[in-house]
Amino acid sequence: MRPSGRQVNEMRPVSIEVGVTKHAEGSCLIKVGDTHVMCTATIEDRVPPFIKNSGLGWVTAEYGMLPRSTGSRMRREAASGKQGGRTVEIQRLIGRSLRAGVDRVALGERQITIDCDVLQADGGTRCASITGGWVALKLAVNKLMKAGLVTSDPLPEPVAAVSCGIYAGQPVLDLDYPEDSEAGVDGNFVMTGNRLIEVQMSAEGATFSRDQMTQLLDLADKGIAELVAAQKAATA
Amino acid sequence: MRPSGRQVNEMRPVSIEVGVTKHAEGSCLIKVGDTHVMCTATIEDRVPPFIKNSGLGWVTAEYGMLPRSTGSRMRREAASGKQGGRTVEIQRLIGRSLRAGVDRVALGERQITIDCDVLQADGGTRCASITGGWVALKLAVNKLMKAGLVTSDPLPEPVAAVSCGIYAGQPVLDLDYPEDSEAGVDGNFVMTGNRLIEVQMSAEGATFSRDQMTQLLDLADKGIAELVAAQKAATA
Amino acid sequence: MRPSGRQVNEMRPVSIEVGVTKHAEGSCLIKVGDTHVMCTATIEDRVPPFIKNSGLGWVTAEYGMLPRSTGSRMRREAASGKQGGRTVEIQRLIGRSLRAGVDRVALGERQITIDCDVLQADGGTRCASITGGWVALKLAVNKLMKAGLVTSDPLPEPVAAVSCGIYAGQPVLDLDYPEDSEAGVDGNFVMTGNRLIEVQMSAEGATFSRDQMTQLLDLADKGIAELVAAQKAATA
Amino acid sequence: MRPSGRQVNEMRPVSIEVGVTKHAEGSCLIKVGDTHVMCTATIEDRVPPFIKNSGLGWVTAEYGMLPRSTGSRMRREAASGKQGGRTVEIQRLIGRSLRAGVDRVALGERQITIDCDVLQADGGTRCASITGGWVALKLAVNKLMKAGLVTSDPLPEPVAAVSCGIYAGQPVLDLDYPEDSEAGVDGNFVMTGNRLIEVQMSAEGATFSRDQMTQLLDLADKGIAELVAAQKAATA
Amino acid sequence: MRPSGRQVNEMRPVSIEVGVTKHAEGSCLIKVGDTHVMCTATIEDRVPPFIKNSGLGWVTAEYGMLPRSTGSRMRREAASGKQGGRTVEIQRLIGRSLRAGVDRVALGERQITIDCDVLQADGGTRCASITGGWVALKLAVNKLMKAGLVTSDPLPEPVAAVSCGIYAGQPVLDLDYPEDSEAGVDGNFVMTGNRLIEVQMSAEGATFSRDQMTQLLDLADKGIAELVAAQKAATA
Amino acid sequence: MRPSGRQVNEMRPVSIEVGVTKHAEGSCLIKVGDTHVMCTATIEDRVPPFIKNSGLGWVTAEYGMLPRSTGSRMRREAASGKQGGRTVEIQRLIGRSLRAGVDRVALGERQITIDCDVLQADGGTRCASITGGWVALKLAVNKLMKAGLVTSDPLPEPVAAVSCGIYAGQPVLDLDYPEDSEAGVDGNFVMTGNRLIEVQMSAEGATFSRDQMTQLLDLADKGIAELVAAQKAATA
Repeated sequence: MRPSGRQVNEMRPVSIEVGVTKHAEGSCLIKVGDTHVMCTATIEDRVPPFIKNSGLGWVTAEYGMLPRSTGSRMRREAASGKQGGRTVEIQRLIGRSLRAGVDRVALGERQITIDCDVLQADGGTRCASITGGWVALKLAVNKLMKAGLVTSDPLPEPVAAVSCGIYAGQPVLDLDYPEDSEAGVDGNFVMTGNRLIEVQMSAEGATFSRDQMTQLLDLADKGIAELVAAQKAATA
Repeated sequence: MRPSGRQVNEMRPVSIEVGVTKHAEGSCLIKVGDTHVMCTATIEDRVPPFIKNSGLGWVTAEYGMLPRSTGSRMRREAASGKQGGRTVEIQRLIGRSLRAGVDRVALGERQITIDCDVLQADGGTRCASITGGWVALKLAVNKLMKAGLVTSDPLPEPVAAVSCGIYAGQPVLDLDYPEDSEAGVDGNFVMTGNRLIEVQMSAEGATFSRDQMTQLLDLADKGIAELVAAQKAATA
Repeated sequence: MRPSGRQVNEMRPVSIEVGVTKHAEGSCLIKVGDTHVMCTATIEDRVPPFIKNSGLGWVTAEYGMLPRSTGSRMRREAASGKQGGRTVEIQRLIGRSLRAGVDRVALGERQITIDCDVLQADGGTRCASITGGWVALKLAVNKLMKAGLVTSDPLPEPVAAVSCGIYAGQPVLDLDYPEDSEAGVDGNFVMTGNRLIEVQMSAEGATFSRDQMTQLLDLADKGIAELVAAQKAATA
Repeated sequence: MRPSGRQVNEMRPVSIEVGVTKHAEGSCLIKVGDTHVMCTATIEDRVPPFIKNSGLGWVTAEYGMLPRSTGSRMRREAASGKQGGRTVEIQRLIGRSLRAGVDRVALGERQITIDCDVLQADGGTRCASITGGWVALKLAVNKLMKAGLVTSDPLPEPVAAVSCGIYAGQPVLDLDYPEDSEAGVDGNFVMTGNRLIEVQMSAEGATFSRDQMTQLLDLADKGIAELVAAQKAATA
Repeated sequence: MRPSGRQVNEMRPVSIEVGVTKHAEGSCLIKVGDTHVMCTATIEDRVPPFIKNSGLGWVTAEYGMLPRSTGSRMRREAASGKQGGRTVEIQRLIGRSLRAGVDRVALGERQITIDCDVLQADGGTRCASITGGWVALKLAVNKLMKAGLVTSDPLPEPVAAVSCGIYAGQPVLDLDYPEDSEAGVDGNFVMTGNRLIEVQMSAEGATFSRDQMTQLLDLADKGIAELVAAQKAATA
Repeated sequence: MRPSGRQVNEMRPVSIEVGVTKHAEGSCLIKVGDTHVMCTATIEDRVPPFIKNSGLGWVTAEYGMLPRSTGSRMRREAASGKQGGRTVEIQRLIGRSLRAGVDRVALGERQITIDCDVLQADGGTRCASITGGWVALKLAVNKLMKAGLVTSDPLPEPVAAVSCGIYAGQPVLDLDYPEDSEAGVDGNFVMTGNRLIEVQMSAEGATFSRDQMTQLLDLADKGIAELVAAQKAATA
């Protein structure tokens, strides 16, 4: 029934290649099916003004898509002079999600910036960015710990994200682009351990019941577990 | 326990004054406690390019805050040269929420723009904007129906929104600013009839369980029912 | 002869409601006929760099119109990425006019920002902004005086403004929008006590004689006197 | 008493050199003392949308200052990404002033753009721009008339402008920069024939009486007469 | 003598992987040592206005760097609101260089946009972009030829580019970042067949003789030959 | 054969008038045929952050064209909100070229900004800007030396620039606009003494051989010698 032939509760294949750029303190290329996102982590000693001298760390994120990461070419945001509303919304979500899984006291007064750049898009780029972004973040933190600059692990549990939606009347896990563009209801679920960080369910020209919401949450639980396993393997 | 002395499941007083500006096709001033939002609806005969000649209508929204609607003055967005990320996120939410409650065939090929301008802010401005925005929209549509330009009601049920969150460990309904700035977890719930349009639950530096999520949804149900009653009274 | 039926030297009804927002140090909603402007005053301890450590205070102003304050919806300036030429011109005029009535030594080294936001426009918004802006300024200064932070009144006399123009060949006081859009010559007159602060007479596709100018100044004298009375009543 | 040793009613020397660029349809370099402005006129067959098919012509203006036209270097507006408030205000004034002296029916449906670029500034650049801009405009119109494209002269009388102000308590004509930067009250007067087009009197931290206003108008009358003579000589 | 231990006339290892994204009509990942650039080609049926209905084709290019493609993180251009001067200069060079090798009549009235995005930078990104950009372009054109939309090959010879410079007094081929940041003189050479398209020699705080220029051109000849071989292998 | 009737190795008439504005520390109006550029030098005591406390000086440049310096009016860059790619490229070239001829130790820790504003354009504006810019720079430095602020001449040799190109198959010196717009290959050559600073050869839709390059360099040598003579005469 799904265009890809997957089961309703079946994720696309997930791979996470680490160390893909020599400059960044942490990096990976995450592939969730045909969605490919390059994630890098940059450590800086300065923090934003509002937490200066608080002893707390900060994690923030930026998101971009290469112009031809999509089926038809998108205008380059640098050329159009600003980041679009969707970009801003996504990078705020990535930052907020990752921060929820960080012990900012343990991190200490430094900032880590996660850049998520979509090389190829096929649905679910924001979820792949969060999942891959956490891996880049973890690798950067590992470097700080190995250097003795951080002594207690500020990232006890992975943060991962997956999308679910109602496609052709059926709740399905991990929407790809053909499903996403048809689904009236879709949601993004960010979790750490068995707890929720962010739930964004949204209906474009449709509505949903609480029962349907529960079904999507159950699917998300399954997907997140598989992503966390991949994250742990990549950062072991 | 709440700073305002309210019960955990008690809304702030809600009032909706209609017809507050002589130019707009629909308008209201919604007050949810000390949060005051002026909402106007503008009807235009043109639609966005992507639905031209489809026979379908469109509803979109813009959001702004007066510089001194808040405790300390914010920089005017027109002066800083762009709308901030939060503004863009909110106005996309308002537009998406209202569209979910519109029969776009019945509306016909025209666009209605809802402007939500916050005159005074005390938490929950995006929810008040959706609730008040629907009233302005309804009043504009009523004008179209009275003029015979629209014959079947494109707005069968009100769309309303309320925020809930976990304040001091306790799920509470309709956060005001002192609560909102302390709550680790908060959510915005948009509903029409007994169905959900949008659920946005978000944790800043915290996480939540599925049980807590259920409690917040129950509170939202109660709040939405009261808001819908106010909307129906205002547009009767 | 006037569309509104007013006498040539008759102002529209003027009302000034104070304390309309709980956050600002001073605020009012001024209504001059169907022109409604919300004015707020914000006190800050910092001053612009060019007067730092001079002991002098500063008063500045910003102006905006809600998108649907006008007959047809205007594009939101925050969305178009800049303030238009008319907006910039008006807010410079408001700031300059108010400063002319301030004893900046008495005010002391602090800045007061006056925000004038037009909720509904029907001609004369810049004059209403100056007149209402002075009321918000006065209320904020009163707060400083009551707190003992300012000891000598820096605002001895109200600053008020009114427009006059030549409509259908006849000099008239306080142009409303239908008159303003037809008038070949119109002027804005800002006064304090019986002295002038600013005179802006402008002809779009027309010219005027010195005699006509004198007639407009006489009308302005009458209008200003009535506005000053309203300002004094509102701030007593 | 004046820094330059001029009489209170004495203009700086005025010269107008025409034909200073080979590309423009009309051009001049106007020098009013040490204020030098290059003015060009560009004729285009298109008009702004709001007068399309009206048969009416349009005149508009743009204004700029070279970065080192002033005592200390100003930031280039093209580099800072926008025209400042003062620039916008001035170019709107130039356009409005010149239009008031144009018979737009006689001009026919075409647009003439006047560019006024200040090569060296020493006070009064906006007045020099209007006076020189009219000369460039006249020369361009002469070309249209010689070509038979315009048959009735759309510019019967010169439009000229001069500044006056109260310097050291004394009304003086044609303020130069040292006077302008000290004057509490200054005004710009635009005239055609013996009629006024624009009067802008403004007090920075000061006020003025109607008597003083009359004195400034008398000075302006004298200055304008001299400027008009120079304009007529340059375009004869 | 070179930091990398290379001979003065030795290129870094070059690899070109094609078909790296499923959406673009042509794509490759070019690696010149540690400089990695992803190049995509997008075919569109529209051309820029200035060649509409001329029957001629157009090739244009855009260039970007991922924020952490460099040793320290650069600000994202989309976030800073514009493309910097260096970016603009480079993408104009890429477009001009590729166009010089295109038979625009044979291409027919269509536009191909080459996007060059630097994933990892280590000197010579603009040259790698031209060399890889040609490969993406060729692959896209091959698709047009296979589909019968283009019948005569518009790309008879590869266009390739290499940098040379004077490092520690010695002319060397293919500067990497440690060399580039030290070299007083460096040049970029774009060639097709044995003819030159673009020569950009530039001295930052230094000068060079015509003899030195000849030596650099000789080095470039050698490097270009190797790059062309790689291009031919990749597109065979 | 050339539209102007010049010999292939014949420059247009060159004149350099110095001291054309009273405010700048150095200034000239350079005319190369009908190309007229006003160049000013501004001395400031501050330097860019990256050389603070290095003891080194800095020279930078900005470039602009008056809107009607060209055959048809160009949009004012200040109005369009940014400097175009061509402007940015040119002003970077001017700055780089002038710096190559400066002894930055001798200049001492100060910055000189060269503004090059094209009053009338007829081809070769960037070369005229470099040549004239050096004159303005030299005059400003002379002032510093006369005041004893600089003791060793930081500008031993003039920096000059000329364009050459292949017009109608023939290498020619100093392209004017009619030639430039037809030439398939053109180059800009910046020299000081008998050494090269910058060589930019570029082919729009064409290619060139090394022999042709040599011929253009020979022509450039001749032109530069004449320009240097004019520079020396102007600054003697």
